[in-house]
Amino acid sequence: MSSNWLKKHPLRSRSMVKQLKPDSLRQGEELQQAQAPASPMLPYRRPKFLHGVQSVKEPGKRPIYCPARDRLLPWKTGYAEVINVEKSEFNEDQATCCKISMRRRETSLEENQEWLSLCSNQYLTGYYWAIFDGHGGPEAAIIASNYLHYCIKQKLEEVVEGIIKAHPPMHLKGCCICNSDPLFVEEKQICQEDVIIGALENAFQECDEMIGQEMKATNQAAGCTALAVLYLQGKLFVANAGDSRAVLVQKHSIMALSSEFTPETERQRIQHLAFLNPKLLADEFTRFEFPRRLKRGDVGHKVLYRDYFMAGWGYKTVEKDDLKYPLIHGHGKQTRLLGTLAVSRGLGDHQLKVTDTNVKVKPFLSCIPKVNVLDFALNDVKEDDVLVLATDGLWEILSNEEVAQIVRSFLEDNKMDLYRFSELAKCLVQKARGMRNGHQWTLENNNPASYDDISVFVIPLNNRDRES
Amino acid sequence: MSSNWLKKHPLRSRSMVKQLKPDSLRQGEELQQAQAPASPMLPYRRPKFLHGVQSVKEPGKRPIYCPARDRLLPWKTGYAEVINVEKSEFNEDQATCCKISMRRRETSLEENQEWLSLCSNQYLTGYYWAIFDGHGGPEAAIIASNYLHYCIKQKLEEVVEGIIKAHPPMHLKGCCICNSDPLFVEEKQICQEDVIIGALENAFQECDEMIGQEMKATNQAAGCTALAVLYLQGKLFVANAGDSRAVLVQKHSIMALSSEFTPETERQRIQHLAFLNPKLLADEFTRFEFPRRLKRGDVGHKVLYRDYFMAGWGYKTVEKDDLKYPLIHGHGKQTRLLGTLAVSRGLGDHQLKVTDTNVKVKPFLSCIPKVNVLDFALNDVKEDDVLVLATDGLWEILSNEEVAQIVRSFLEDNKMDLYRFSELAKCLVQKARGMRNGHQWTLENNNPASYDDISVFVIPLNNRDRES
Repeated sequence: MSSNWLKKHPLRSRSMVKQLKPDSLRQGEELQQAQAPASPMLPYRRPKFLHGVQSVKEPGKRPIYCPARDRLLPWKTGYAEVINVEKSEFNEDQATCCKISMRRRETSLEENQEWLSLCSNQYLTGYYWAIFDGHGGPEAAIIASNYLHYCIKQKLEEVVEGIIKAHPPMHLKGCCICNSDPLFVEEKQICQEDVIIGALENAFQECDEMIGQEMKATNQAAGCTALAVLYLQGKLFVANAGDSRAVLVQKHSIMALSSEFTPETERQRIQHLAFLNPKLLADEFTRFEFPRRLKRGDVGHKVLYRDYFMAGWGYKTVEKDDLKYPLIHGHGKQTRLLGTLAVSRGLGDHQLKVTDTNVKVKPFLSCIPKVNVLDFALNDVKEDDVLVLATDGLWEILSNEEVAQIVRSFLEDNKMDLYRFSELAKCLVQKARGMRNGHQWTLENNNPASYDDISVFVIPLNNRDRES
Repeated sequence: MSSNWLKKHPLRSRSMVKQLKPDSLRQGEELQQAQAPASPMLPYRRPKFLHGVQSVKEPGKRPIYCPARDRLLPWKTGYAEVINVEKSEFNEDQATCCKISMRRRETSLEENQEWLSLCSNQYLTGYYWAIFDGHGGPEAAIIASNYLHYCIKQKLEEVVEGIIKAHPPMHLKGCCICNSDPLFVEEKQICQEDVIIGALENAFQECDEMIGQEMKATNQAAGCTALAVLYLQGKLFVANAGDSRAVLVQKHSIMALSSEFTPETERQRIQHLAFLNPKLLADEFTRFEFPRRLKRGDVGHKVLYRDYFMAGWGYKTVEKDDLKYPLIHGHGKQTRLLGTLAVSRGLGDHQLKVTDTNVKVKPFLSCIPKVNVLDFALNDVKEDDVLVLATDGLWEILSNEEVAQIVRSFLEDNKMDLYRFSELAKCLVQKARGMRNGHQWTLENNNPASYDDISVFVIPLNNRDRES
């Protein structure tokens, strides 16, 4: 039923198609037309560490790309990617991996000189990995992959006095207005890591604004999800806005370090906003959720529904207004926000409107990541423990458990190769991409494979202090 | 520091005192004045199953009341309560325990007769326990204890066709507009229990409206928290709005079946509302959170703060507007919403305004419970496994683990007494109330005991199908 979902809905039209996943699409002219070319200011490219790999579409081929063997990424991180089948001309995923050095800023002469002299560290070093899954064109993902780490670096530098001690000072520059300030900060249990989390939240917001300005200037509607990992001062900060996923695979355990933000997982937040600000729906949509799109014959009957405040389901008597297109509609992977987007958090989409309406999607999106922290002091990380980051193309095919099984058996069999984490990433991508089978891509068991872009980082956590 | 919190804040005045917890209060005239008498339409009383116990204040005494030995509650449920010390004239907690019988409603002749004849059950039986912790007077808690179960019964009867099968029908009256309706319902994974959860959510909302009408008619500002437990069709539904708590104590495990809703746990929801609708703060409050109330000397400096979108902390340059009283202020048990309320969900408070302002508290409150489900088919419940429900007076003194330890050792030592669950409830209340020690109430270790009202149900889960 779900594969016919697209055909049923009169609101949907050509230019909305570009937001959709491949299983709802037909190939052909519409796609070519809907696909905006990359802005001249933002030439399309693959991740910098692939050093010039082009990854442009070749009919019927989906080669898997990895970094060159002689150019290892920090921590010997592994990476692999593959392009989608029918979704877009370009691979809309992007990725970044780099070291971040934060400088303590010069402070002005008015500030407390004595306190300044107590700070010995002039630099803090962090490591950074991020994947971005673009939609509506590759532009937002390209900007985010170029700039999010700069935003993070800048936001961390702005609060660096707050992250060099276990408890941050009430006043950034260490001045003392109230003698009990350290006590107030302690009572609230504010620690170093809270200031890093705050900096990450603010950095995502700033990067989103930057993308908004660029998209406005070039009149484009692209957006992207963002999953960023920062290693700083013995902790891993996993910041996620979208439907990519980070999973920690250890010998005897698996731990998801992110959760997905989709119209389904954020239904109540989105419906609540529509309740508080009904103008956002411009009389084109209903905020209620129903198990299916209602028909005229339903009017007057009591049908299952959910409003913003309900985790459960109730019955409501259908009115004419309930026949409008639902704010959130579909189920599982097919769920869409305003019939348009499959994710509810991410960067960009400032210009995105629902086709043939004046309804903006952006007010319902959040650019703020949920940040989870892995403290290496509390987690005994062993050889072969890895963090797997991947876009939804991987996770729609492989479960956390299947990924963990592949990781463990691959690393068990490949102990010596310095490049083995990229080989492992390649192996994971290959499992989800499957093999070409006529016009289709199928898995070993003949089920459909992923038609989406797939990008995978494999980060060997035990290598963290061995090299720069 | 926190005990002096009250004195520091100029916004706080006499009539706000009645919302506060005893440790922030001084005894005397103010209290008597602030305490509104119970409305003549709502005579003050203790729970019906106490059969006329009055529980009026006697100087220096805090007797613990239980149901009479010869009148056992359903499932031989135990109960005990004690009045507060300095908080209010009356015990503002209330409790209800009863059986609920739901009748299948007569349906009109137009509806599908064939389907009706398939329904054999004419009645559904449930069991119900609830505790309410009042503030600003006992009225809201009294109304809630009288009516919430009627609202629940009514809301369940309205959707009874949706809860007698594993999967509820798309159309309440079973008519068929679309052949795939059962498939749509299944795809969304909507089951019986979702409809019961929806009915509970709607019942809380209806009861809240009822209290609002009564409070408006009598010009009172009382409110209460609500923790309600419903046993229906082999499952326990635990619906909580406020800071009471339900804990399942088994031989080898402890499971919290509710979570607390306070200005601290709901900070982001509350700040977000103030961001979306700043008029609600009437220029009297700032939505930002700071570790302490800011002073003039802070202006121009960068201090720790949090906004609605931040789980972490950042630094912001203090402006004059930031010196306003914070929307949420204090820490731990002392945290207050608009300087007024210690809870963020519950029933009532429709008329409540912040003293000397026009700022209403109600828009920031939610009357919707979070419902957790315990399915007896999936949980092996044994003899002596109990569910403990208690108001915050108990939990501010005893941890879940301490309660579990008392429960286990008491029941081990008292195997035979039919009335033992009330004796256990009494034992729990006694542990938290402590003993009188001059003008103070202290625990065995000489720490301060609870000065609050305390109400405790102990529900023996293994008795559920043994009696009516």
